[in-house]
Amino acid sequence: MDTKTKELRFAVIGWGYWGPKIARNLESLPHASVTMIADLDERRLTGISLQQPWIKTTTELEDVFRSNVDAVVIATPVRTHYRLAKEALLHGKHVLVEKPLTASVEEAEDLVAISRQQNLILMVGHTFEYSPAVNELRKLIQSGDLGKIYSIETERVNLGLFRNDINVIWDLAPHDVSILLYLLGKTPEQVRVQAHAHLQPHIHDVAHLDLEFDDGMNAHIHVSWLHPCKIRRVTIIGDARMAVYDDTNPAEMLKIYNKGADVHADPGVSYRFGESIIPHIDWIEPLRLECEDFANSIRTGLLPRAHGGVGLQVVKVLAAVQEKLDMQEKDDATLVA
Amino acid sequence: MDTKTKELRFAVIGWGYWGPKIARNLESLPHASVTMIADLDERRLTGISLQQPWIKTTTELEDVFRSNVDAVVIATPVRTHYRLAKEALLHGKHVLVEKPLTASVEEAEDLVAISRQQNLILMVGHTFEYSPAVNELRKLIQSGDLGKIYSIETERVNLGLFRNDINVIWDLAPHDVSILLYLLGKTPEQVRVQAHAHLQPHIHDVAHLDLEFDDGMNAHIHVSWLHPCKIRRVTIIGDARMAVYDDTNPAEMLKIYNKGADVHADPGVSYRFGESIIPHIDWIEPLRLECEDFANSIRTGLLPRAHGGVGLQVVKVLAAVQEKLDMQEKDDATLVA
Amino acid sequence: MDTKTKELRFAVIGWGYWGPKIARNLESLPHASVTMIADLDERRLTGISLQQPWIKTTTELEDVFRSNVDAVVIATPVRTHYRLAKEALLHGKHVLVEKPLTASVEEAEDLVAISRQQNLILMVGHTFEYSPAVNELRKLIQSGDLGKIYSIETERVNLGLFRNDINVIWDLAPHDVSILLYLLGKTPEQVRVQAHAHLQPHIHDVAHLDLEFDDGMNAHIHVSWLHPCKIRRVTIIGDARMAVYDDTNPAEMLKIYNKGADVHADPGVSYRFGESIIPHIDWIEPLRLECEDFANSIRTGLLPRAHGGVGLQVVKVLAAVQEKLDMQEKDDATLVA
Amino acid sequence: MDTKTKELRFAVIGWGYWGPKIARNLESLPHASVTMIADLDERRLTGISLQQPWIKTTTELEDVFRSNVDAVVIATPVRTHYRLAKEALLHGKHVLVEKPLTASVEEAEDLVAISRQQNLILMVGHTFEYSPAVNELRKLIQSGDLGKIYSIETERVNLGLFRNDINVIWDLAPHDVSILLYLLGKTPEQVRVQAHAHLQPHIHDVAHLDLEFDDGMNAHIHVSWLHPCKIRRVTIIGDARMAVYDDTNPAEMLKIYNKGADVHADPGVSYRFGESIIPHIDWIEPLRLECEDFANSIRTGLLPRAHGGVGLQVVKVLAAVQEKLDMQEKDDATLVA
Repeated sequence: MDTKTKELRFAVIGWGYWGPKIARNLESLPHASVTMIADLDERRLTGISLQQPWIKTTTELEDVFRSNVDAVVIATPVRTHYRLAKEALLHGKHVLVEKPLTASVEEAEDLVAISRQQNLILMVGHTFEYSPAVNELRKLIQSGDLGKIYSIETERVNLGLFRNDINVIWDLAPHDVSILLYLLGKTPEQVRVQAHAHLQPHIHDVAHLDLEFDDGMNAHIHVSWLHPCKIRRVTIIGDARMAVYDDTNPAEMLKIYNKGADVHADPGVSYRFGESIIPHIDWIEPLRLECEDFANSIRTGLLPRAHGGVGLQVVKVLAAVQEKLDMQEKDDATLVA
Repeated sequence: MDTKTKELRFAVIGWGYWGPKIARNLESLPHASVTMIADLDERRLTGISLQQPWIKTTTELEDVFRSNVDAVVIATPVRTHYRLAKEALLHGKHVLVEKPLTASVEEAEDLVAISRQQNLILMVGHTFEYSPAVNELRKLIQSGDLGKIYSIETERVNLGLFRNDINVIWDLAPHDVSILLYLLGKTPEQVRVQAHAHLQPHIHDVAHLDLEFDDGMNAHIHVSWLHPCKIRRVTIIGDARMAVYDDTNPAEMLKIYNKGADVHADPGVSYRFGESIIPHIDWIEPLRLECEDFANSIRTGLLPRAHGGVGLQVVKVLAAVQEKLDMQEKDDATLVA
Repeated sequence: MDTKTKELRFAVIGWGYWGPKIARNLESLPHASVTMIADLDERRLTGISLQQPWIKTTTELEDVFRSNVDAVVIATPVRTHYRLAKEALLHGKHVLVEKPLTASVEEAEDLVAISRQQNLILMVGHTFEYSPAVNELRKLIQSGDLGKIYSIETERVNLGLFRNDINVIWDLAPHDVSILLYLLGKTPEQVRVQAHAHLQPHIHDVAHLDLEFDDGMNAHIHVSWLHPCKIRRVTIIGDARMAVYDDTNPAEMLKIYNKGADVHADPGVSYRFGESIIPHIDWIEPLRLECEDFANSIRTGLLPRAHGGVGLQVVKVLAAVQEKLDMQEKDDATLVA
Repeated sequence: MDTKTKELRFAVIGWGYWGPKIARNLESLPHASVTMIADLDERRLTGISLQQPWIKTTTELEDVFRSNVDAVVIATPVRTHYRLAKEALLHGKHVLVEKPLTASVEEAEDLVAISRQQNLILMVGHTFEYSPAVNELRKLIQSGDLGKIYSIETERVNLGLFRNDINVIWDLAPHDVSILLYLLGKTPEQVRVQAHAHLQPHIHDVAHLDLEFDDGMNAHIHVSWLHPCKIRRVTIIGDARMAVYDDTNPAEMLKIYNKGADVHADPGVSYRFGESIIPHIDWIEPLRLECEDFANSIRTGLLPRAHGGVGLQVVKVLAAVQEKLDMQEKDDATLVA
């Protein structure tokens, strides 16, 4: 039988913000359907029974694991990711977990190991790795068009959405860390962090992360739930060219600047100024491409782009940042005279 | 004799970027004239002799100190500020020094002390304290219109102008630190820093500063010589309202956002969204107002807004940042697992 | 029986660009469902049969008129509007026609007359009359906040979508004319036009319309299929204040400028410059509100906002513009010496 | 004697808005000086006597004509241009007249004829012909990079500066008409106009001009003194590419869009979407280049770019527009049914 047309059945656990979005995209794939939706809160499931009565809904997660679905999407709070994904894998289901993959490095390592033993797909919802703009940017970097990369700055700020189970680093920075690792194909060696909890005690709502890579390259990540403007921007500083990816500007999502500075033996630094280019990007919804990759991986057995190992790398960076943050809490700042 | 119409004679030492700008503004004041210009590089002085032959030019700084000018403007490299300003004060001249006031806390303290002993005006070129937009923003903060201030973010980045005598922190951050101290009327207690030297060894060209104040407020300063876009922005996060001051957007230099987040006992965080307001600002060139304040202080003996004591506070912050930077150099970052 | 909960059955004729959008919105209303979809092109209907097999599809329009639906949506080419709407009304169906209502004044007048005789709702798809931003703007004008209105400028330009059955005036200007009539509550007295057919012979793709109202007010409409940028902007010039509505800028869709010019007896004109205000607008999809208004009118018998009479007024303006355009074709331009 | 170093003496008549700007630029040229300034209003001349006592000032225009200056700049109200320029030419002076050259075609023709007879330079202050951005745009058009030009749209609107001697067409449109003629190298064949006098009776403050060229190309000019935003934009629609020149956006003054629409035999119109390019433009102040061109023409006898003949062409277009406007005044609009 042709694996390309094999009918795939999906279940979704968690019917909050991401669950319905992913379900809609899976539904729109050829030869794929969502046959079961689970949530602990029965009220969330009411609408489904009315509008799509052919989908089975349940508040018992065991129903999902024991069902005949091929794959499970886990769109629940982070602290539950590990337990649910493990259970699903052990029941022989392929698994797509919302980002971040887990709440700790150990948990992520365990999931990756189990998925290998079970020969099942483990994937994490790093949606931005599927963004056409990010992929265009990656080509620019990997081809050397930007030259040696000095530095990358990312900003992901807005008013809201505050959470009370995780801080802004675990909530928003997974996007930026996954973008960075995907663009660069490597992992930072060490991290620093400056973070503040303004609204809720002990839940940091503003953070600046500094990541250092082996060759002197550094990246800076600014995430915040407390900002007047919605900013989603990545700035790449190469020694040949520079680029800005602005996810909030559909007409000019990517801009490449032919400009830079050069150091000379004696008289110092000179500057180059040339044209800027805004490439045309054929836009496809990243979540759609992510769902396609999941379905395709299930059918072929090939690793998806955002496979469990990638999710583990991101969790390693987040965990190092959290460790640094826990340690410092005012110990190592320098007093002003 | 009316002090308001007393004729003031100014000398300018250093005829590079700032010297001519300040001279032009001093010249345009009523009852004020620039009568002497000094620079070690004779070639810089040639144009002056041709176009304004009544101004005396010299490469001997002693000529300035021994002349009959009332006041001296020092627009030379930072490392020479202390020596030149001290000399001028000891010769009985009022002094305006370009920012930062000096290269160390001790130097700044000494200049402040000497100016008091000599009963002379010592002022520092914190131009942004004279910006009408910054003053509008200060009124908003001081009146409580923005509520309790959680956080301030500043960005001052562009491609260039690299220097080889000081790093980007001493070059650009004096503007941001002086704006912060002026807006808030208080000094940070401790500082952290993340900085990188990409182009020239040991001369940091990108830096992120984190300043903590007594009441949990924090400020973040991003300065860079290595960025594709010119950004000069200050974002204020208050618990009642938020504001953005964008110095590169003359038509909308200040925008006040009636929005925010509120914490509740139980169910978490709620959001407020209201109108935004762009106040009309009557624009006067800040450098013009700075020169007026200098002339006025000389005439009245009253402290100018950006007096030596303010310059000292800014140097204290910069010095603490530099100390932190020197100490850390990779000691206290956290390794990624 | 409560009319508010009476179940309404809708049919949609024409399954191109607008048909599916309106159907989705009607489906999402309480107590409403789309039960029949018709299109002359069978291929367009295939997807529906697969995904929503409970909806009846047909290529025979007679099936619609003879069915038990309460109301018919007509989303077909303009030249067919009159015939289809008339047929539907005569079969006792309420009717929502895409804009413009008809291709001529006579047709529109006839439809309005029939709908009155039949005591049925006749509505036209003037979506922008349901835009929250347009309604905010209307309040500003009607309340006198902007003062006497001197002039309104509208722009609706982009690359595409060229049509070969109607020119850009009949395609895009219905939006602007309906916005103007709705904002002002009155109709222009006379019109001028400048239009050009660059790509397809005799099908004008760029047009500038000038509308004059009774009290010296004028409006200018610029529509184009041939422009590098997507612009959808309405600028209102009042003698007290001015306003810009930019439909492509969700964060600042409406901006009110406290500025203006005043004429004086003798010395001429003086200027006022004050703050600008960006009101917060609670956004609801206009098409959703339009569909709600249609359903509500059917249930209550009250006229919808965009009723047939409004559609007729817009067609009158478009027809006058077309007449002027046909007449002038190079007769009345002035030769350059 | 080398004509390149011949010392040139300039007089300026009219010390309002443009006079001082042009004088400052002439002064900064090598081997050039302003030696005389004339204005009927003595108060305007006071400042000059104080700050630049070596410049002769006068309220008697005859003083200028009888002086030993080589050339005269005429920066006075339009109605006086002809008389003053003629007088200056007849006294053997080269002449630079602010735009528009004259108030009528006959006057402009006469000045051109006199300057030829006298073998003197007659130039008009079409500053935008010296803008580096306009010249970059001209290269794009002339080289064929944009393809066949379908249409050009220009906007020049702002709040102010109202005048009471001429309408907005004669005040602002000379810039746009001169840009168009310079870009295209040809003159429109016929014109249409829509204009309104909102503030001052009979002095139109808003106007839309439509110019038709021989090959079906058209241009549209929108000028206004009554608009909330400052817009100075030129949009070029070519069949190969499109371009926007935005004079208010220094960082992106010119943007070239690789996009367009193509007509096909049967199925209609298809679209091309490619990258956009923002060329780097080495910026030099256009007024400086204009003054250089004037000085250079005087020295070499070669025609300047914006010579009298160009000024005449622009006046011809403006006069045709005015004639059309005078004729139509509500005669030829079409009544709405």
